[in-house]
Formats: sequence, C-alpha cells, structure tokens
Amino acid sequence: MANLTLLRDQLRSFAAERDWDQFHSPKNLSAALAVEAAELLEIFQWLSEEQSRQLPADTLASVKEEVADVLLYLIRISDKLGIDLIAAAQDKLQVNAKKYPAAIARGTATKYDKL
Amino acid sequence: MANLTLLRDQLRSFAAERDWDQFHSPKNLSAALAVEAAELLEIFQWLSEEQSRQLPADTLASVKEEVADVLLYLIRISDKLGIDLIAAAQDKLQVNAKKYPAAIARGTATKYDKL
Amino acid sequence: MANLTLLRDQLRSFAAERDWDQFHSPKNLSAALAVEAAELLEIFQWLSEEQSRQLPADTLASVKEEVADVLLYLIRISDKLGIDLIAAAQDKLQVNAKKYPAAIARGTATKYDKL
Amino acid sequence: MANLTLLRDQLRSFAAERDWDQFHSPKNLSAALAVEAAELLEIFQWLSEEQSRQLPADTLASVKEEVADVLLYLIRISDKLGIDLIAAAQDKLQVNAKKYPAAIARGTATKYDKL
Repeated sequence: MANLTLLRDQLRSFAAERDWDQFHSPKNLSAALAVEAAELLEIFQWLSEEQSRQLPADTLASVKEEVADVLLYLIRISDKLGIDLIAAAQDKLQVNAKKYPAAIARGTATKYDKL
Repeated sequence: MANLTLLRDQLRSFAAERDWDQFHSPKNLSAALAVEAAELLEIFQWLSEEQSRQLPADTLASVKEEVADVLLYLIRISDKLGIDLIAAAQDKLQVNAKKYPAAIARGTATKYDKL
Repeated sequence: MANLTLLRDQLRSFAAERDWDQFHSPKNLSAALAVEAAELLEIFQWLSEEQSRQLPADTLASVKEEVADVLLYLIRISDKLGIDLIAAAQDKLQVNAKKYPAAIARGTATKYDKL
Repeated sequence: MANLTLLRDQLRSFAAERDWDQFHSPKNLSAALAVEAAELLEIFQWLSEEQSRQLPADTLASVKEEVADVLLYLIRISDKLGIDLIAAAQDKLQVNAKKYPAAIARGTATKYDKL
C-alpha cells in the first residue's frame, strides 16, 4: 500500500497548505466524490458500449483525469475516517463472493436480492 | 502498487468466473461507479458536517463497504482501459497544484476558474 | 399538467430537429440525468447548509440552470417510457406517507427501514 | 403549473408534519436528489440500450418510483430557493437552442464546447 499511503500524505499536505481541512468533512468529501464520479460518467453518457471500449486518445486522457479525481477523494475521505481502503476492498470482495456465488450469478446481471 | 494489482487480478477472476465481462464495458462500469458513489453520499445526506466526522460504529461499517465498492469499480474500469491508477493520480495532483496555487487558494473553496 | 406537456412536446421537437432520438435511450437519459443532478450538487458541495439557504444572485442563477436541466431530462426519460410524471409523483407521495408515518418519523432523518 | 404547485404544497405539509424542514437545506436536498438520480441509473446500469427501451412491467414500476423521487426533491429544492421550475426549464431550453443549433448539432452527441 506504499503508493496509496504516499498519495494520502500528499493530499494531507495539499489541504494543509491551502487551509482546506475546514471544508473536508466526510459529508462534503462524499459529495465531491459523487461529483467526480458523475464527471467520469459524463464522458460515456452518449457513447455506445462498443465505443466506450475503444476510446480515442483525447477521450482516454479525460478519463484518466476523472478516475484520478475519484481516487484522490476516495483516499481523502478514507483518511478522514481512519479507513484502510485496501483492507476494506478485500473485505468487500469476500462479501460479494457470498452475495454472488459463481454457480448462480453466472452470465446474469441480476442483483443479488433477486437471484 | 502491489495491493491494487492484487485487487485488479482478483476482480478479473471474479468477473471471469461469473462470465460478467460481457457487462463490464467502460460505459457500464462508469455508471456502476457513480451508483456506488451515490450510495456513499446517501449515508451522509441528512447528517451535519460535524456528525459526519463522528460516525457511530455501524455507520462507519457502512461507509467502509461503500468506499470499497467505489474502489473496486475504479480498479475495474481502469483495468478495462489500461489506465495506471496511481500514475494517473500523481499526474492529477500536479495539475491540481497548478490550478490551485497555495498562495491564492488559501482558505477558500472557490473553483479554480473563478479564483 | 399543461406546462409539463408543453415542455415534453418542445423536447420532442428539439431532439427530432437534431436527430438525437438515436442517443436518447432510457439508459443514456438516466446517465444524463444523474450527471445534471451532480452538477447541481457541485454548486453546494463546499457550502455550509446555512450558506446554501442564502445564495448570492449569480449562484442562484446557476442553480436555476441545473434544476432546469434535471427537469428536462426527467421529462424526456418519462416521455420515452410512457410515464405520467405527475401521477407517478402522487403515487410516490402516498407510498412515502406510509413509509414515514408522521408520528414515528417526526424530527428524525432515519431511513424508513430503521425507524 | 397547477399540478406542480399542488405537489409543492403537499411536500410542504409532508415536511411540516414530520418536522423535517430542519434537514431540508438546499445543500442536503441537492444530495438527496443526486442519490435518487443514481437509484434511477442503477436500474439501467447493466441493461443494453435496447433493453432499456423495452422494460418489463416490474422494472417499469421501479422506474416510475425513482423518477417520482427525483421530481419530488426537485420541486422541494426549487421551493426552498424560490425557483419557478417551469420558467427555469423554458429559459434553459432557449439557452440550449443557442448552444446546439440544429444545423450544426444534427446527428452528433458532441458537447457544445467542442462542436
């Protein structure tokens, strides 16, 4: 997790240098994260699925900026709440494996509560 | 990036075992990511900023699940598009440092294009 | 509903004149709606609740544009799916009244499934 | 606008009876609106565009509930900020007509700033 830890520390310095911790409540950060996720979605909204798999270089560059923004806010909100992102993701993978047993979920996008 | 790489590989297996790659176009993954980000936002929507900083244990557990979901889809869409998430975040941090010079952005939440 | 019907018809013409019906699948429209909702959220993300109640004129003008965009896509997706928006809202109000009985929900923002 | 006015008044009573105005700051309402928009998006996230045009009855019923929720919060935030939704939508339609001249925007989903 060296790289996420480094980013976490860089974001701490970034906010401290700008006196931005006053704005960075988990509530506000969750809104900022949703806004960035929507900016990523905006890139794809009128594309076909096929087009979304074959992005021209300038579109891909925009996608990189938006996934980066999402990651940065994700690291930031996790830091503010003392969450270990990697551990949380590993835990969730196990939950998902139980919610969606391979034998049952195979080839269907049906939500677990309707499987 | 060992941990993100591991998660990427686990997600590849997870999707392959369920034959889910057919659903995992970048377009669809960007929608799923936005949905998870909104589920995180939902936890905070009626809380005060102060309350969001002092979450009870069960709420914090819910937050962990949602930040995990966001990270998992973020890793997945990046994998599908060949994006190195950590490198993208480092690049974006540099862009942000130029957009928001500390001396100008100090103590204000004003967007860069209005600074 | 005269006014919503008029807007529906104007949006039909708007799309027809631009040959945009090809892009206006309900799936795509739901993404566009979520993007506009996030643009509205972006305006408020760093404001305090108190500030959000006392918007300066230029911010209020931006809010007007975003609520308008949300309404336009909402009318459009409803039109594409044959949904009567007003009737749906009246039905949902009744559902909400049952989910949140006044005597129980009074003064709390707790979600119905935890009341 | 008789129907929107009626819904506005019903929502005012609904909130007053539950003492919910304390939670209904424009900031919070914008988050709630984004959450509902994402719940609508969730219904479509794994569907093809074609499938989204031909929804089975139970899915359509879910869509009705979500578009209703979006409309209700849209009316509520507009009420709190003194915005006339229909007038705002009419104004925005005129802005859009200028941003996307039919002759130039015909058959393309390109954003106005790149047309």
